[in-house]
Amino acid sequence: MATTLKGSGVSPGTGYAAAHLLVGSIPEPPKGAVHDGDAAAEKARVQAALEEVAADLEARGERAGGEAAEVLSAQAMMARDPGLADGVDELVDAGVSGERAVYEAFGAYRDLLAAAGGYLGERVADLDDIRDRAVARLTGAPMPGVPGDAAEPYILVARDLAPADTALLDRNLVAAFVTEDGGPTSHTAILARAMGVPAVVGCAGATALVQGTLLLVDGATGEVVIEPEPAAAQAAVATARARAEALSGTSGPGATADGHPVPLLANVGGPKDLEAALANGAEGVGLYRTEFLFLDRADAPSEEEQQAAYRAVFDAFPGGRVVVRTLDAGADKPLAFLPPPGEEPNPALGERGLRMFRRHPDMMAAQLGALARAAEGTEAIPYVMAPMVATVAEAAWFAEACHAAGLETAGIMIEVPSAALRARDLAKVVDFFSIGTNDLTQYAMAADRQVAGVSELQDPWHPAVLDLIALAAGAAGAAGKGCGVCGEAGADPVLACVLVGLGVTSLSMGAPALPWVRASLARHTLDQCRAAADAARSAPGASEAKEAARACLTGLGDLGL
Amino acid sequence: MATTLKGSGVSPGTGYAAAHLLVGSIPEPPKGAVHDGDAAAEKARVQAALEEVAADLEARGERAGGEAAEVLSAQAMMARDPGLADGVDELVDAGVSGERAVYEAFGAYRDLLAAAGGYLGERVADLDDIRDRAVARLTGAPMPGVPGDAAEPYILVARDLAPADTALLDRNLVAAFVTEDGGPTSHTAILARAMGVPAVVGCAGATALVQGTLLLVDGATGEVVIEPEPAAAQAAVATARARAEALSGTSGPGATADGHPVPLLANVGGPKDLEAALANGAEGVGLYRTEFLFLDRADAPSEEEQQAAYRAVFDAFPGGRVVVRTLDAGADKPLAFLPPPGEEPNPALGERGLRMFRRHPDMMAAQLGALARAAEGTEAIPYVMAPMVATVAEAAWFAEACHAAGLETAGIMIEVPSAALRARDLAKVVDFFSIGTNDLTQYAMAADRQVAGVSELQDPWHPAVLDLIALAAGAAGAAGKGCGVCGEAGADPVLACVLVGLGVTSLSMGAPALPWVRASLARHTLDQCRAAADAARSAPGASEAKEAARACLTGLGDLGL
Repeated sequence: MATTLKGSGVSPGTGYAAAHLLVGSIPEPPKGAVHDGDAAAEKARVQAALEEVAADLEARGERAGGEAAEVLSAQAMMARDPGLADGVDELVDAGVSGERAVYEAFGAYRDLLAAAGGYLGERVADLDDIRDRAVARLTGAPMPGVPGDAAEPYILVARDLAPADTALLDRNLVAAFVTEDGGPTSHTAILARAMGVPAVVGCAGATALVQGTLLLVDGATGEVVIEPEPAAAQAAVATARARAEALSGTSGPGATADGHPVPLLANVGGPKDLEAALANGAEGVGLYRTEFLFLDRADAPSEEEQQAAYRAVFDAFPGGRVVVRTLDAGADKPLAFLPPPGEEPNPALGERGLRMFRRHPDMMAAQLGALARAAEGTEAIPYVMAPMVATVAEAAWFAEACHAAGLETAGIMIEVPSAALRARDLAKVVDFFSIGTNDLTQYAMAADRQVAGVSELQDPWHPAVLDLIALAAGAAGAAGKGCGVCGEAGADPVLACVLVGLGVTSLSMGAPALPWVRASLARHTLDQCRAAADAARSAPGASEAKEAARACLTGLGDLGL
Repeated sequence: MATTLKGSGVSPGTGYAAAHLLVGSIPEPPKGAVHDGDAAAEKARVQAALEEVAADLEARGERAGGEAAEVLSAQAMMARDPGLADGVDELVDAGVSGERAVYEAFGAYRDLLAAAGGYLGERVADLDDIRDRAVARLTGAPMPGVPGDAAEPYILVARDLAPADTALLDRNLVAAFVTEDGGPTSHTAILARAMGVPAVVGCAGATALVQGTLLLVDGATGEVVIEPEPAAAQAAVATARARAEALSGTSGPGATADGHPVPLLANVGGPKDLEAALANGAEGVGLYRTEFLFLDRADAPSEEEQQAAYRAVFDAFPGGRVVVRTLDAGADKPLAFLPPPGEEPNPALGERGLRMFRRHPDMMAAQLGALARAAEGTEAIPYVMAPMVATVAEAAWFAEACHAAGLETAGIMIEVPSAALRARDLAKVVDFFSIGTNDLTQYAMAADRQVAGVSELQDPWHPAVLDLIALAAGAAGAAGKGCGVCGEAGADPVLACVLVGLGVTSLSMGAPALPWVRASLARHTLDQCRAAADAARSAPGASEAKEAARACLTGLGDLGL
């Protein structure tokens, strides 16, 4: 019988292909290895390998374009650094083998960077990557990283995936993701849902798999079958594909089986996401992130530039709701033209989101002004909301500024625990809530979204998080106001039912998840959703909560969930 | 009439003295300044100034002893750095004046350090301090920093105080602290309470005061009177002093006016705190921080070493409760011998506290074993608790390990919002709670305790924080278990009454606050405390909550609070 690993399914669908284990690093060339005595020839060999690495990085950058191109071209420059080359040459002149010389010379530079910390310290991974690629070329070892030239689809298996690992993935070749670490809000999970690729995270034993092993991955149940019976595996893939194709044709407004409407909206991070939102039948935009206009540039965008960008989104959804979130910079998204006023040992707990506007009200006025002008004469229904609100005073200040700018509907993100706790007071001063489950989970559990070691805690299924969502949704409902969810939780077709049961009135997500959530809601009544929510909140922990909710949601099997 | 500034009173008492504004930096020596042509003499003059700075730093280090001595001796080495001296000499040889040469040469090195970031980046402040001291010596400008040789008491006024500013303070010379930034959990507030010095933080206008201005500071009301009528000011100080002297004689168990007992315990961070705890009538130890045994050393302490340290505390309180918190390393207290497994962009949200033990159960077993052996035959009542618990599973795992080690009473800190929210479930698996209000506030408001820019949010008076405390205390009460507070909130004699009103059963604090809290509780009934708690929780924000509570607590005036 085939062995099965079990992890957390975070992006539904079924994949069947050979495992490609992401090689994190190459074996260290042995200490004391020497070359055959011809130092000049050895230096030339190393020089050629480094140049090939640099040229390969540049070529990949050109294929990728955009920000990735810049990152990779900077990395190519490192590979051609004359100081590093001198260090290698010196060792080769002393008799050290080329691969060992590369390893040692890069290692010394690496230690310097690592000790420096900060921006320089973050370059360590780039330097290691060059070293590993050069050594792999010199020794013939398998090249680390995502396969750049795979001919067949593969299942990417890794400890965890960083943005750098995935920037160049060809989505037609990735049949599924399986990671040993990571939780439902990890980069892998978010990327998989955005790409519509099945994914299992937190899968113990994954990194011990043998390169090339055939795997059957179920991104809903979290099961990873090792060397499954081929006919059965192919049948499972066919069933899943047929189901996905049937779903992808669906559209129409979101609602429970008994007709309780739950508008299904799309999260949009830039113009490129609009097409997918429309293709998957989004009823509007539940989270329009405006950061892309502000990041990676030397100056703030002009009001005209902002206005044009906002207008494009409004125009894409005539008659639909478009919820624009004001600039959420700071933390992991620093602005080049507006650094934080002091050192921030924990940027996620620092001056991010609306807090930045408290110090720079002119920037807020400019953004609200551009939004108001973009909204003039639009057929969309513009909503504006502020991120990182913690107090009633902040919310009232923001709502007043929106109304003064001529924007009628002003809301706030509920992502700081205090905002959920005091939602009753906040509902008096704003027009709607939108729960950011990723950050709300991060703060409620005091567990960084970016750190694999605490990924067990980064799970919106934790009953404490559900309690906070219930408080916010309940307070909004009592005040006759809307309370959406725009975090990753809304994209989980099981959790989506629970959220509706908790009183959430709309769900926003990455577009590929829309058909799944639409189908899941359509198979359950509001009472079933409420029963699932109660069951989940009565559980002692996240996994028990999920099991208890699933037991109430009888229509999941029909979807292969 | 005298002008009055208003801030937040964070350490009660009254101070009257001249303002000493902490000079952050000296005026920049003008660009292009040249010396009189005798480069050799100018170099000697600079050399002498740098040597005086180095010698002064060393002398201060010797007076201070301990960790401060090491920090200052490292700084003295920087002042004697030959590379820096060469840079200065080169400029002087080119005709630049000594002070300008120091300024420029240090500036270039500074930029290098700042760009490196991390540990090196943190040395920038030390380098600037040397530069400023050397330039001050060369130009005759007032020396920056805390006065090292004041003859008269002064009131230290600053934007905010860092540990480096305050390491060498002579508490007999500091009449009060006034800072423009900072909140109730800022370093200034904690230090002031530990020293028993009146303090007002978040005081707008403080840094615009003129050096030497006479100030009357009320650390309870937060009022700072500029150039008060001298006789009235002296009378206010005399009254406050008489009151403090009357209080300092008090001891006996804590209780409300109507006899509801509230054990008053001390926070202890090392052997040196025990004396103050006993002198101020502590009924036991509410928080024994064990970090001091583990920090700043290359290896973990042996079980024997731990056992001796724990036994010393148990022996100091025969018949009293001693609550020991297991190692709370990580975040801002990294262990040299156990670095985090990966980079932590937000250490406060990373693998700290019990999470570290989850990865290193052997370390936990060693600490619990040492505690169990230290407790054998002690006359104290040993309690053990874990920091940073977020889930029921973590709490149950810890309690089981305690019981297995033979420790009967196992509890947890309530400092992660999820723990407060799910306190009802947690009360089933542990024997007591202790609320860490500093971290609970930090996470509930998503506001870093170390960042001045978000200090308005770092206030345990925020109603959301009071809600979480009420949840935890209520759940403990329903389960018949104790719920203490060991964060800074318990040291505030006004908030202490509110905490008791919320259902908190014991209060632990830095020893100097004990007489104040004892007196404040003795002047109010439990019903008054409950009314104050209800009033605070009904307020929309922190300042309104404080005002509402004060209005219910009629005995505060008697204490000058």
